[in-house]
Amino acid sequence: MRKLFIITASLFLGLAVNAQEAIFDARPLVSPEINSDGTITFRYRNPSAKAVQVIGDFLPTKEIDTPRGKAEVTVPGEMQKDSAGVWVFTTSCKVESGMYTYRFSVDGSLTIDPSNMFVNRDVATLSSALIVSGGIGDLFKVQEVPHGTVSRVWYPSKASGFSRRMTVYTPAGYENSSKTRYPVLYLLHGAGGDEEAWITQGRASQIMDNLIAQGKAKPMIVVMTNGYQSLEAAPGENAQGYDVPSFRVPGGMAGAFESAFPEIIDYVDSHYRTIAKKESRAICGLSMGGFHSLFISLNYPDKFNYVGLFSAAVGVGHDNKSEIYQNMDEKLSAFFSKKPALYWIGIGKTDFLYKSNEEFRAKLDAAGYPYAYYESEGGHIWRNWRDYLSKFAPQLFK
Amino acid sequence: MRKLFIITASLFLGLAVNAQEAIFDARPLVSPEINSDGTITFRYRNPSAKAVQVIGDFLPTKEIDTPRGKAEVTVPGEMQKDSAGVWVFTTSCKVESGMYTYRFSVDGSLTIDPSNMFVNRDVATLSSALIVSGGIGDLFKVQEVPHGTVSRVWYPSKASGFSRRMTVYTPAGYENSSKTRYPVLYLLHGAGGDEEAWITQGRASQIMDNLIAQGKAKPMIVVMTNGYQSLEAAPGENAQGYDVPSFRVPGGMAGAFESAFPEIIDYVDSHYRTIAKKESRAICGLSMGGFHSLFISLNYPDKFNYVGLFSAAVGVGHDNKSEIYQNMDEKLSAFFSKKPALYWIGIGKTDFLYKSNEEFRAKLDAAGYPYAYYESEGGHIWRNWRDYLSKFAPQLFK
Repeated sequence: MRKLFIITASLFLGLAVNAQEAIFDARPLVSPEINSDGTITFRYRNPSAKAVQVIGDFLPTKEIDTPRGKAEVTVPGEMQKDSAGVWVFTTSCKVESGMYTYRFSVDGSLTIDPSNMFVNRDVATLSSALIVSGGIGDLFKVQEVPHGTVSRVWYPSKASGFSRRMTVYTPAGYENSSKTRYPVLYLLHGAGGDEEAWITQGRASQIMDNLIAQGKAKPMIVVMTNGYQSLEAAPGENAQGYDVPSFRVPGGMAGAFESAFPEIIDYVDSHYRTIAKKESRAICGLSMGGFHSLFISLNYPDKFNYVGLFSAAVGVGHDNKSEIYQNMDEKLSAFFSKKPALYWIGIGKTDFLYKSNEEFRAKLDAAGYPYAYYESEGGHIWRNWRDYLSKFAPQLFK
Repeated sequence: MRKLFIITASLFLGLAVNAQEAIFDARPLVSPEINSDGTITFRYRNPSAKAVQVIGDFLPTKEIDTPRGKAEVTVPGEMQKDSAGVWVFTTSCKVESGMYTYRFSVDGSLTIDPSNMFVNRDVATLSSALIVSGGIGDLFKVQEVPHGTVSRVWYPSKASGFSRRMTVYTPAGYENSSKTRYPVLYLLHGAGGDEEAWITQGRASQIMDNLIAQGKAKPMIVVMTNGYQSLEAAPGENAQGYDVPSFRVPGGMAGAFESAFPEIIDYVDSHYRTIAKKESRAICGLSMGGFHSLFISLNYPDKFNYVGLFSAAVGVGHDNKSEIYQNMDEKLSAFFSKKPALYWIGIGKTDFLYKSNEEFRAKLDAAGYPYAYYESEGGHIWRNWRDYLSKFAPQLFK
């Protein structure tokens, strides 16, 4: 077998043009490399570059002054060129467990790490990705536990007049029964994102698999929608194909998505074995998706028993003419009069939406509406949103 | 709404760190750009590079002499640096409709196009991707037609002792019925590939959606497996996480996958509304997947009525000790005595496996076994495999 494989390998290696040549000597340069002391080394071959930096969310941050106040920015890692033309950077400290993304700045131009095959698209930006095990990072990895199914599903949108795509997670065991019914979590993305965001950057299927396997979360269906009602699907997955000359974000905070949300609930309840009642339905989202979660739950107060606002874009929208955003005080009163099981707010201390969240909480406090509050380090970043999902999901449907 | 959006946008833009900053000025450089005359322009900013080339499967090829005979290689496109440090290359001719992948060679190091958000992973190699409409490329695009569902599903493998992942396409309408049953096509990847290969590089879901919508193919379930029986799933989707220090291909041509294949058929027939009989089952694959299709169909001659060998690695394996590869002549005789509806062989004129396919066809001819044969231009490349699927699928289950 070994001999056969080598013969075959050299056959394949020999003459394939531009297709499979990388199979057998794929990564002469190892990058990233997690060292035994927990630091991480990055390598990038480019003899002619004049300056290369690593920019990533595992690096230390510093505060800077901006015209609008203080802001937190990452301190880039300055790479050093060795005699072979390979740029090298090692973090000064052990990097704690988690999932991180990074890019190289090559004489000012940003690019992914060509030695790392793991790439995430966030909105229109590609970044290289890495996971450090041994802590919360273990939640983001595929573990040897029962796995749910992740499906890309098209539902007919009457509101839009065309089919729209969503990503649906059904928990392990769903396919093995024809009777068991499950609660549903609607999990919404942020501005510029799409129905792929939570499954790629957010690691939602790994988080749910692992929390459910550990007995920390109930088995549930998770529905990840596309918050831009005017779009069919994520870039490359719609009728525009790859012919996207430039990337523009269409208005996602004008009421169209929120007002059409009941058709999504109807589709899910009629195509999956859900428990189709308020007690078994949750909604949460990050940033614009938190804004969506806020207004969807307010406008359909009988639909959701659990609401999660992750770094939510609260405090905007009130000047919009859509009926969805009108009479917020009355809607809040109606919603909380029905005593939701959980109203959860999470935000980072340096998030640029911190102040508007503080104002929103003050409004809830003044009216005596109960909610749970979690304040993390850091800002408006995926590190926090994965963390928030990991904390929110275990509290659902108990 | 416009005003609100701009206010919100500047909020989001202002202080986000490394996360969503690309939303509003995502692509200052447009690359690739399909020009009105059908040529394509590529752009890459890198003032300090000394030489940059485009390498892609839309470029002309030339024959070169190698120690093992002639080989076909792509002629790289030499990019020219403008005064702003942007390297530019425009193809000399109109590029015909299709899907293509390319990379930049920057002073000898290969990288994706940082201005193009569409990236394909082929084995361990990342390439930028583009689609040219107006011909076969239209088959590879999401069109405004009913769409099937694409699911990543884990099945328990008794043969391996752990769960393994596969990708399952169910045609449009599958979810709207609880009675209709469908035929199944098993679609296998090549050496180094995985259960993602056909859905990303192969555009299988778009091809099937479009062929079915045009009435050219019957609605069918398509099952895309992982041909390495020792692996759970694609890189990054298994328990190794992202901690892959280097990429190694484990032996995929030693009989393990073929001998365990019945458990895949059993799982699919017991979890999907299939027509669970030979008349409604097809198998095909590219390269190593063609080799797998050959031996799976020979060893289970009552299972498949349609077999497709795409640039198949025929002519290897006979010296392997696995029972799967023994007594090929007897197995061929038994298989063809049952009169399969279609035995389809496709290969490119410059494929390095052309000669071994020619020998295999001579063997079939000598024994009088009927088959259909399609010879294309080009070699061992995805352009051909997408084309072959587009030609094979319409012939199934008629």
